[in-house]
Amino acid sequence: MANTASKFTYERIDKNNAVLLVVDHQVGLFQLVRDFQADEYRNNIFAHAAIAKVFSLPTVLTTSAETGPNGPLPKEIVEMHPNAPLIKRNGEVDAWDNKDFRDAVKATGKKQVILAGITTDVCTAFLALSLIAEGYTVYANADASGAMSKRIADDANDRMRAAGVHVYSGFAVACDLMRDWRNTPGSAELLPYFDKYLAQYAYLARGHAAAIDRGALLPGETE
Amino acid sequence: MANTASKFTYERIDKNNAVLLVVDHQVGLFQLVRDFQADEYRNNIFAHAAIAKVFSLPTVLTTSAETGPNGPLPKEIVEMHPNAPLIKRNGEVDAWDNKDFRDAVKATGKKQVILAGITTDVCTAFLALSLIAEGYTVYANADASGAMSKRIADDANDRMRAAGVHVYSGFAVACDLMRDWRNTPGSAELLPYFDKYLAQYAYLARGHAAAIDRGALLPGETE
Amino acid sequence: MANTASKFTYERIDKNNAVLLVVDHQVGLFQLVRDFQADEYRNNIFAHAAIAKVFSLPTVLTTSAETGPNGPLPKEIVEMHPNAPLIKRNGEVDAWDNKDFRDAVKATGKKQVILAGITTDVCTAFLALSLIAEGYTVYANADASGAMSKRIADDANDRMRAAGVHVYSGFAVACDLMRDWRNTPGSAELLPYFDKYLAQYAYLARGHAAAIDRGALLPGETE
Amino acid sequence: MANTASKFTYERIDKNNAVLLVVDHQVGLFQLVRDFQADEYRNNIFAHAAIAKVFSLPTVLTTSAETGPNGPLPKEIVEMHPNAPLIKRNGEVDAWDNKDFRDAVKATGKKQVILAGITTDVCTAFLALSLIAEGYTVYANADASGAMSKRIADDANDRMRAAGVHVYSGFAVACDLMRDWRNTPGSAELLPYFDKYLAQYAYLARGHAAAIDRGALLPGETE
Amino acid sequence: MANTASKFTYERIDKNNAVLLVVDHQVGLFQLVRDFQADEYRNNIFAHAAIAKVFSLPTVLTTSAETGPNGPLPKEIVEMHPNAPLIKRNGEVDAWDNKDFRDAVKATGKKQVILAGITTDVCTAFLALSLIAEGYTVYANADASGAMSKRIADDANDRMRAAGVHVYSGFAVACDLMRDWRNTPGSAELLPYFDKYLAQYAYLARGHAAAIDRGALLPGETE
Amino acid sequence: MANTASKFTYERIDKNNAVLLVVDHQVGLFQLVRDFQADEYRNNIFAHAAIAKVFSLPTVLTTSAETGPNGPLPKEIVEMHPNAPLIKRNGEVDAWDNKDFRDAVKATGKKQVILAGITTDVCTAFLALSLIAEGYTVYANADASGAMSKRIADDANDRMRAAGVHVYSGFAVACDLMRDWRNTPGSAELLPYFDKYLAQYAYLARGHAAAIDRGALLPGETE
Amino acid sequence: MANTASKFTYERIDKNNAVLLVVDHQVGLFQLVRDFQADEYRNNIFAHAAIAKVFSLPTVLTTSAETGPNGPLPKEIVEMHPNAPLIKRNGEVDAWDNKDFRDAVKATGKKQVILAGITTDVCTAFLALSLIAEGYTVYANADASGAMSKRIADDANDRMRAAGVHVYSGFAVACDLMRDWRNTPGSAELLPYFDKYLAQYAYLARGHAAAIDRGALLPGETE
Amino acid sequence: MANTASKFTYERIDKNNAVLLVVDHQVGLFQLVRDFQADEYRNNIFAHAAIAKVFSLPTVLTTSAETGPNGPLPKEIVEMHPNAPLIKRNGEVDAWDNKDFRDAVKATGKKQVILAGITTDVCTAFLALSLIAEGYTVYANADASGAMSKRIADDANDRMRAAGVHVYSGFAVACDLMRDWRNTPGSAELLPYFDKYLAQYAYLARGHAAAIDRGALLPGETE
Repeated sequence: MANTASKFTYERIDKNNAVLLVVDHQVGLFQLVRDFQADEYRNNIFAHAAIAKVFSLPTVLTTSAETGPNGPLPKEIVEMHPNAPLIKRNGEVDAWDNKDFRDAVKATGKKQVILAGITTDVCTAFLALSLIAEGYTVYANADASGAMSKRIADDANDRMRAAGVHVYSGFAVACDLMRDWRNTPGSAELLPYFDKYLAQYAYLARGHAAAIDRGALLPGETE
Repeated sequence: MANTASKFTYERIDKNNAVLLVVDHQVGLFQLVRDFQADEYRNNIFAHAAIAKVFSLPTVLTTSAETGPNGPLPKEIVEMHPNAPLIKRNGEVDAWDNKDFRDAVKATGKKQVILAGITTDVCTAFLALSLIAEGYTVYANADASGAMSKRIADDANDRMRAAGVHVYSGFAVACDLMRDWRNTPGSAELLPYFDKYLAQYAYLARGHAAAIDRGALLPGETE
Repeated sequence: MANTASKFTYERIDKNNAVLLVVDHQVGLFQLVRDFQADEYRNNIFAHAAIAKVFSLPTVLTTSAETGPNGPLPKEIVEMHPNAPLIKRNGEVDAWDNKDFRDAVKATGKKQVILAGITTDVCTAFLALSLIAEGYTVYANADASGAMSKRIADDANDRMRAAGVHVYSGFAVACDLMRDWRNTPGSAELLPYFDKYLAQYAYLARGHAAAIDRGALLPGETE
Repeated sequence: MANTASKFTYERIDKNNAVLLVVDHQVGLFQLVRDFQADEYRNNIFAHAAIAKVFSLPTVLTTSAETGPNGPLPKEIVEMHPNAPLIKRNGEVDAWDNKDFRDAVKATGKKQVILAGITTDVCTAFLALSLIAEGYTVYANADASGAMSKRIADDANDRMRAAGVHVYSGFAVACDLMRDWRNTPGSAELLPYFDKYLAQYAYLARGHAAAIDRGALLPGETE
Repeated sequence: MANTASKFTYERIDKNNAVLLVVDHQVGLFQLVRDFQADEYRNNIFAHAAIAKVFSLPTVLTTSAETGPNGPLPKEIVEMHPNAPLIKRNGEVDAWDNKDFRDAVKATGKKQVILAGITTDVCTAFLALSLIAEGYTVYANADASGAMSKRIADDANDRMRAAGVHVYSGFAVACDLMRDWRNTPGSAELLPYFDKYLAQYAYLARGHAAAIDRGALLPGETE
Repeated sequence: MANTASKFTYERIDKNNAVLLVVDHQVGLFQLVRDFQADEYRNNIFAHAAIAKVFSLPTVLTTSAETGPNGPLPKEIVEMHPNAPLIKRNGEVDAWDNKDFRDAVKATGKKQVILAGITTDVCTAFLALSLIAEGYTVYANADASGAMSKRIADDANDRMRAAGVHVYSGFAVACDLMRDWRNTPGSAELLPYFDKYLAQYAYLARGHAAAIDRGALLPGETE
Repeated sequence: MANTASKFTYERIDKNNAVLLVVDHQVGLFQLVRDFQADEYRNNIFAHAAIAKVFSLPTVLTTSAETGPNGPLPKEIVEMHPNAPLIKRNGEVDAWDNKDFRDAVKATGKKQVILAGITTDVCTAFLALSLIAEGYTVYANADASGAMSKRIADDANDRMRAAGVHVYSGFAVACDLMRDWRNTPGSAELLPYFDKYLAQYAYLARGHAAAIDRGALLPGETE
Repeated sequence: MANTASKFTYERIDKNNAVLLVVDHQVGLFQLVRDFQADEYRNNIFAHAAIAKVFSLPTVLTTSAETGPNGPLPKEIVEMHPNAPLIKRNGEVDAWDNKDFRDAVKATGKKQVILAGITTDVCTAFLALSLIAEGYTVYANADASGAMSKRIADDANDRMRAAGVHVYSGFAVACDLMRDWRNTPGSAELLPYFDKYLAQYAYLARGHAAAIDRGALLPGETE
């Protein structure tokens, strides 16, 4: 039993002190997710895995009983992280109960953890709370954790928040890592990332680029 | 008047230290529940009662004024727990105000309480808060507590959360009890339970089993 | 290409002239359904299959590529209808394109068709429109057809309505078949059916029965 | 500036130590309320005022600039409480800033305050927070406070909760006051109250009474 | 089998040619209604019955198996119409199948029917479609018909619309009957009706009356 | 009684043959509108009145009992159309029942009518249906008609659609009038109109203009 | 002015007689779409363009004032169809008003048109209605048309439906084109298509494939 | 790293001690906002900037990479505050990381900060948390901060609340600043402000004024 104070600590992500976890984003479990439209959610879990690439964050993948109905991780995620440890848990629900997983996380030497998983109320929340109890600062990417209903997700996020977990969007995770568009990684790396995973910003930027390339014709004007 | 600190404590359910309460899931009160579709909610209250069977948890049933419009418990729930104490309160709204109920709970010797009831804002919340004040760790199964509106449920759950109650899904309750699929109870007991009460997981598992039995034909292929 | 007038014809179901179709309610396809909560939807497809039992309606089951990811029908549905033809389509999306299926429907000699399927916009709608074109009167049980979103279901139902399909609830289907509680089947057969598949009515009836059995105590009164 | 601890204290309403406040439920301001359907909300503010009558709670009414567009209180509320002080504030937004109002509340000698008002984010929240700062225990009847959107109400309720305000439903307020159906006031007083203001419970009780009066005929049976 | 053209006919209500039907607004069936908040819906069914009083429309009440769980009509509705025929159907789901009911409607000699009932998809829709088939013009008061879900109500209303039923709000029914505020019944009769059953308009009118009585003080001004 | 065929006729707006009606957009009735957020809706009714200015459409304003609680039109709308007839109906609910109004519309000589009003189910729908019966082609600007609920608006719009009314957005009305950005009025007149009344397009255009003015710096680049 | 009968004709898509239109899916206009989440919608417009590739349908692309704020098409769509005519309209809102566009469509010689565009109420609906008037059978891919609100989309789709347009999902479009999984294109072409654009089906199929590859271990079992 | 206690402090806004911040309300970023309807949101950001004018609050404007796709501030906001510092950040995501911005805020000498920005989860939340860490009391105007979804906004607001930020409506901000309608600024300044930016209150006041001017005619009465 671990006690964790509920008071909020504003600690920003330090890209040099962070590890990213991909927790049970398996193709079978994917079907359980009902708080996001399916294509949106697939985009979000790819974005979650990819942000670690952008910032060269150490990454740990884990699955739960993947030979059963839960299924394997999407191959795209595995291929993104060919050298990351992929811990296949045969029984533990809370990944922190698995020694290999704990060792893999500890081996990174990082004290900040960015995570997302399926389902939010079980795989994400149990692990996040264990990490808090262990002294880690935890950032839950809410866009990439999926639950059987929006309501269940809300309750799970509230539970994590009460323990001091930072629950926020994938966009906020990326910006928190970057801090300044002039950094490296900065605009050169993040703009392509947003172009791929954040359609709203992608097309804002493309529209802007097109305006510059093409000049100032308004609807109804001719060249 | 009892003071309870609002700080979050991450305490996992210990299946050897937990009692499950069925609070006023009566057929009359059932009609008041408007934050779940009715068939879904009936499924959820059966699942709540049944998880105690899977883990052989001591169980206490209680009703409020059941000879009146509130009505009796569904017979399926009573039949699931033929030996559990069923405390029929003649007047107390908060079950903890009833000595027989308090005695029944205390007699289990458990310090963790898993509960759900109708309505969330009255029967569940009043009891949960009294239990917290009494020193119990409380786990509210949000799927199996029903309220007159989603909004009222949200307020009630927030109120319980502020007192340190763990508000989460029935799926999370089951996984928190199990911890590891290799345990006993584990997959052998939980998969049939999910087959019955969690259609999403049920049909994921059935589809998986069928794939193995039948081999690898894709749509359009012939045997 | 078939032309079908859009004008509405009020034709009630004649239980002696109706066949019920179970279309692709397969455990894999079940995962695609996002316009109903999963446990509610499973209840609804069981209720759809079961109403044919109550009224001894000829029934035809069909599946699409069931050896593939679509998976088999839930065994409960198959077991309900051990003697019904189960047409396993190897490729046809619209079941009416399959000669065995057409023959099975035609063999019943009925001119009214009650159907539901997964997904609403494809399996249900394509078949319903083909049946209308063929001259059948078609009743779509909207509770038991599932789609990838509520929006897609709405569009599909509008499309069927435009062709004269009667789109209504499972409760309305049952009442349309029964017409009078004094008929056979009537209250003796329908009340147990509603007790099983329609929790709202089930507990209304149970509460009523309990009131009669137990007498008139109000909350706060003692016996 | 007042500091108020955020920790949750579970203090039940003591009907002998409570005052009820009706805050700016004025007919003009009524039009601003968009987080409840209008007839439902009118019912809720009447229920709020009426619960004080059931329990003979001292009651204070107040209005803001009632000769202007905000308008007067509904006459039904004023007529319910002919002897209650009605403090007409000419300018103060937070009623606690008005000396007459403070004096009226203090004159009751009560330390628990049940309140509701229009709008939730201004009239209710400002006063509730002032009362907390003053040392009162505050119970906000969420059904009877109205805001310009559900979202604004949620934010306001969260703000009050953070200060330790108990935010819950009118049904929970009534049950918290009663505690036991055998008390006085108890079922004899509350059942008529619920019959008037809580249609769900009203018709549950009426159906029950009718069942007892009329005997056990099921649909389809004849006398 | 009756054929009814789907083309829309704009026929206004003629208060001298209209009968109003109250269909199965029973206290037990009331619990099945989930597409309106309960207090709002009770208000709406009272408003439906009351509009017949305002315009002295002949009125027919009917119930389905009222000695069973469906329960009796609310006494307020019966008391509003002490001389109206109350046809207690012992078995017929579609009231038009009951000869007494048909006779009662025909005895009024009216060709326009305003109706509402529980549930929308069964009691309201079956009767409405039978009436259309019989040649009546039918006006369905959508505010006063209740269904087990909004979705089921939408499908039922679409089905009625396809047959030419006018589906609209209770407010529109009242205004269609009145046509001109200077008529009798007109403002003298309708304003009190709206004051009772339409809180939005009620408080608009009260605020207006108060403004005239009290003069032009704005917030912050003193008398 | 007028019969109107339900078949759809695709008739585009002809700016030389269209009159625009502002129906009961009064400040009191404005409070009844609950299917739009209030500021959004105010914007929409201004946009409705303003499109007539852009295209110099003859315009008729009308109010219902404006000296009573319904109140006057917003002065902004009246000031936009200083020379338009403003028909103050003293009693008629359906504006077409008022001879002055009919005369004003007929005096324009136009056969296409663009209209919007409060409330959708009464003021807009009654008039629209009367106009259809009279042989006009009717375009209902759905953004600028307000109802007491979204549900009531949907039913009202369905009713108008069944009679052949074109129900569409204010944006579609404007584009239907313009047809080609190179026309007069075209981009020169419509872009300022959208800048004022359609924030989404406004800021798209402003962002585009800024891109051209300022050149191609991306986030993180410096000039 | 063209008259089009409203009666529904069930005409299936004939892949040899169909042309697909991409209408104004421009990166600027993309920002106006608020009835879909942005990443989901981008996926949907790519899926729309891609289905033409799968079935080798003649395809016509068009844009509206693309040098202005509306912006160009996403390059991915243009690159998918390097040889398709891309008609850049300088002013016409309804693409059918543009002779080059009409010629391009007519040049395909097809009589069935599958289309989607931004916005649904203007670009999609205006063109769809013109095509109906011209005698084409029109299939609107509702997933790939975007509007400023869900409500505006619903109204636009209803308007198209009234003219006989088939409004349905992208999944239904694909299945209507394929008809049978054993056809060419059939499962060999469609499964990769769904893997890319329909995450729900993609992961269902991947889970199935993994089950076959890996054998039958359930959670908790070890190899 | 800064620790901030989570306990709630009720501190009212002191108009003499407050600075208002406009954070990244840029025309490009505006397109990302999906948790408000666009016209409503534009109104809200104008209202946010304007309240500083009413109370003569020192104001600081800032933009992020405004020469890129994010675009400039709406000119209306810049013109409202011609003398306010406008800090154009070239790279910093959290405005507090920009020295010029910090200096501008500090130069005001105020300890209370009212802010809003785009997006809520990044620009608003990062800055708000930095300000809390710096010792400021922070008031977030929730109406004027926009996010990519309501869900993301909720999570962001919860995160700010956990740090002690006051998250409330623009109406509450204005009332908190004013405190008493008789103050200066008071009704004389706030009523015009509400007339412009708060349509609900605007038309309530206009209706009231009209009632006084015109006298007491009810619908149907004639002068």
